Formats: sequence, structure tokens, C-alpha cells
Amino acid sequence: MADFNKIYRSYLERFNAHLEKFCDGLNKCTPSVLGDSLVYSLRLGGKRVRPVLMMAVADIIGTGADKVMDYALAIELIHTYSLIHDDLPDMDNDDFRRGKPSNHKVFGAGNAILAGDGLLNTAYSVLFDECFKGNEYVSAAKYICDCAGIHGMIAGQSADLLHEKDAEADEETLKFIYENKTSKLLMAAVVVPSILNGGKYYSELKELGKKLGYLFQLTDDILDVTGNFEKLGKSLGKDEEEGKLTGIKVYGLDNCKLRVDIIGDDCIKIIDGIEGDASFLYGFVSFIKTRLG
Amino acid sequence: MADFNKIYRSYLERFNAHLEKFCDGLNKCTPSVLGDSLVYSLRLGGKRVRPVLMMAVADIIGTGADKVMDYALAIELIHTYSLIHDDLPDMDNDDFRRGKPSNHKVFGAGNAILAGDGLLNTAYSVLFDECFKGNEYVSAAKYICDCAGIHGMIAGQSADLLHEKDAEADEETLKFIYENKTSKLLMAAVVVPSILNGGKYYSELKELGKKLGYLFQLTDDILDVTGNFEKLGKSLGKDEEEGKLTGIKVYGLDNCKLRVDIIGDDCIKIIDGIEGDASFLYGFVSFIKTRLG
Repeated sequence: MADFNKIYRSYLERFNAHLEKFCDGLNKCTPSVLGDSLVYSLRLGGKRVRPVLMMAVADIIGTGADKVMDYALAIELIHTYSLIHDDLPDMDNDDFRRGKPSNHKVFGAGNAILAGDGLLNTAYSVLFDECFKGNEYVSAAKYICDCAGIHGMIAGQSADLLHEKDAEADEETLKFIYENKTSKLLMAAVVVPSILNGGKYYSELKELGKKLGYLFQLTDDILDVTGNFEKLGKSLGKDEEEGKLTGIKVYGLDNCKLRVDIIGDDCIKIIDGIEGDASFLYGFVSFIKTRLG
Repeated sequence: MADFNKIYRSYLERFNAHLEKFCDGLNKCTPSVLGDSLVYSLRLGGKRVRPVLMMAVADIIGTGADKVMDYALAIELIHTYSLIHDDLPDMDNDDFRRGKPSNHKVFGAGNAILAGDGLLNTAYSVLFDECFKGNEYVSAAKYICDCAGIHGMIAGQSADLLHEKDAEADEETLKFIYENKTSKLLMAAVVVPSILNGGKYYSELKELGKKLGYLFQLTDDILDVTGNFEKLGKSLGKDEEEGKLTGIKVYGLDNCKLRVDIIGDDCIKIIDGIEGDASFLYGFVSFIKTRLG
């Protein structure tokens, strides 16, 4: 894992430099509260999983990370907007994000709604600029848009909200939520480099993104039970307290851990089929799994 | 005005048929509450000012209304999302919209936030499809996106929220809010047909859109004082009650009415410079002004 961590950090630093430059532009927004609220959440840090994964896959399959930098930026803007809206009192009502007060705790709910809207809109402004380069760039932009939309992430959030206090533990619903709320943006992260490179490994990467989403969500559910605030920077134990539909509720804790192993193995098999140096991707699967300690 | 009304109705019906077909697709969303909440607000009716204006301008300058139908759709989706988020308790807190309960009164605030997000995202999905047709189509899409974004409508909403209970009546701030919150989307409505037709009358139309926004906002502010609920379908008298920054507060009621006349005349002068049959646009200016009765 030493190599993986080094490469991860190198992608992360490269992406953060790109994002930081972008934040400097956002900071000039009028009124200043708008710029401040946009930049506050973008600068909360985090692992930048989607951008790093996109850059790494781009290098692995020969697209080249340079080509996807603005797609990586757009996907992080979309991810960040979704967290801001998700944390709102009318949604998940989370006061903390990455160990700091959530956007609405700092700027108020009204400004947080606008900050989310602003980041979503800005993501597409960035992507329209890419569209001038040709049709494969349009396809890649539209792929992100559809993964984020009403047949993707938003559908997952809607189902999540609907089944928030659902007494019945239903596996089919859980899978719908996992796949849409979490997998779809990860699918976009790994599929964009493929679309920009003639569809190379398209179906393999799509399937990998889907499985990585499940892996993330299952480990998240497990950490909500077994993790601690200091390490995760967000409120824990809330899922059970609120009777939320989670993997724990559907499968039980032990079976959840078993599923993490099985899905991890599925990912490895997919990665085995990708030629070239895919060692980063093996490391990435371990990286998600080892969050469990 | 008889002719104007007839032409308006004909554009309106054509647009509504296009929108209705689109709503049939949205209705198939999972979970159904998502589809229902999206379609509820789109079907609340309204005058479809931006789409109708876009189609009419497209015909007047020779772009042809057919070419802008999906841009008109996107702009209506964006306008509708902005109303849903604007009506939320954390924003303007309006219980009624077009004489019916606002989105959050029917579906709850959490679902209304997602409905707004969903409409915004869907607007861009529609626009990315247009981008495959060539670079002028990308330019037109990006123009809408930037008018709706953090240097456009969202900036206006943010400033509106910031000065909600501002004791100081400040003309500069009022103009910033008018121009961004209202003018920008109207500018997009009239400029898109120009971009799709080699930039024909670009600067004239941009200026016209800006002025029409002022005209709208000033008449809105006046109607909040002099109008009635039955005719407008939304809560009235709230601005003053809440000490909101409006044209009335900055200029006084009589001066507001005077300004409506002056800006109306400015619009006429711009329209005078457009060759061909621009009679619809003269009618449009009267149509906004006669809302005052």
C-alpha cells in the first residue's frame, strides 16, 4: 500500500491545485456571501475520491489525466453540492461534515440551498466549455449529467428520503439507493476517461464503478456503527437512531462485512481484465475496505 | 392587442404541447414521488413568458422557432426550479404559486429541494443533447447556463436573500438584484435565437432582455402593493410586511410607475431597430405594462 498511498497523494495534490485555482475565481462572486459559501464547502477537504479515481483511470487506460481535469473538477462540484443539500435540516439534518460545521450551520439554510444550486450550475458551466472540443467531449459531459440526475443520484436521494423511517427492511430498495445515490457518480468518474478514449473498457469500467459504489456504501453503513467521530469527521450512530434503511438493517453487521469481501473480490476480477499497470485500482479497493480498520 | 394575444396563445399552446410530452417522460421517474413533484410544478401553468419570448424572437430574426424548442424547454425547467427553491420556508417562504399550494406544501421541503435540483439537472441534460449539433449550439447552451448561474440568477437570489430585511433602501443593490434575478434569464431567452443565427441583433436583444427584466420586476413590485390574489395566484403585500428591498421602497409607488413608462419606451426604441415584423415585441412590452391594469 505504500506505493498506492504515494500515487494517491500525488493525484490528490494535483487535483487540489487545480481546484484551488478554480476557488480563487469563485471567491470573486458578488455578493461575497455567495462566493464564501461555495468555497467553504469545496475547501473542507476530503479525499477527493471521484477526481482521483478519474485521473488514475485516465492514466491507466491511456486517456491521460490531463484530458480529464475539468471533468474531475465538475464531478467534485456536483458531489459537493449534493453533500450541502443532503446535510440540510429538511434532508439528512447533519450539523457536521468533515469535522467542521456543515454549510447551513455557517451560512444558514437559505444560503446553503443557493450554494448547492450554484455548485451544480457551475459544474455544467465547466462542462459546456469542454463541449466545444468535439462530440466525445459532449458525450462525456452528458454521461456525468445523467449520472447526477433524476435517473441517477437525485433518484437515489429521493428514495433515501422516502425510506428514511421505513420499518420494512427491503433489499431491492436498498440496492436502488446504493446504486443511484453512490454508484452513479463513481461510474461517471471511471467511465468518462473511457468515453474520451474511444470507449476503451467501457462496460468493465461501468461495472467497476457500480461495485465500488456498493463497497463504499456498505463500508459507510458499517462505520456508522463501528467508527468514531474524530476519524470520520461526521456524526455517527444516526442511521440506527433514526431507523434508517441501511445495509446493517437489511443484512446485519456480520453479513455486511462478508458482502464487503465478496464485492471487493468482484472488483478485483474486473480489474484483472484491464491490461497495463492497474495496480492503483487494486490498491483503491483495499483502500476502501481498510477504512474498516 | 387582439393579434398579439392570438399569436401569444399560439406560441403558448405549441410550447405547452412540447412540455406536456416531456412531462410524460418525467412521470416515469422512480421513486414516483420524484416524478410527481417535478411534474406538479411544471404543470402549474403560468404564462411561459421565457419560452414564448424565445420562440417569437427566433421567428422574428429568422432563426425559426423549431430550432429553439429544446432551449425554450430548458429555460422553463430552470425558471421552474428557481421558483420551487425560492418558495421554500428557508428562502421566500411562499405557500402559494399560481393559485395552488407551492411544491413544498404538497411534497414537503426535502422533496421540493430535490425537485428543484432535478429540474435544474434535467435542463442541462436537454441542453447537452443539443450540443452534438455544433459549436453555436454549445455557445447557446452555455449562455443559458451562465445566465442562470453564480454570476446570474443565483447571484440575484443570493443578494435578494441578503437584503431581505435591509433597512437601507439602496438603488444600486436593487438594480443588481433585478438584473441578475430577473433580467438574466430573459436575456438568455432573447439571445439564444441570436446565437443560433450568427449573432444577429445580439447586442440589441441582450439590452432588450435586460430592460424587459426591469420592467417585469418593477410591475411585480407594484402589483405586490396594488394587485389581488385571485388575479395573480400568489401571496401579496408580503414585501412591505417583511421590509423587503423593492422598487417601491427605493423609488416610491408613483416613481415606480413613471419608471415603468420610461423603461417601456426604451424597449420600444430597441425594437424599432430590428428589421422585419417585430410587432409581437411591441405587444409584449404592452403586455407586461398592462398587467398593471
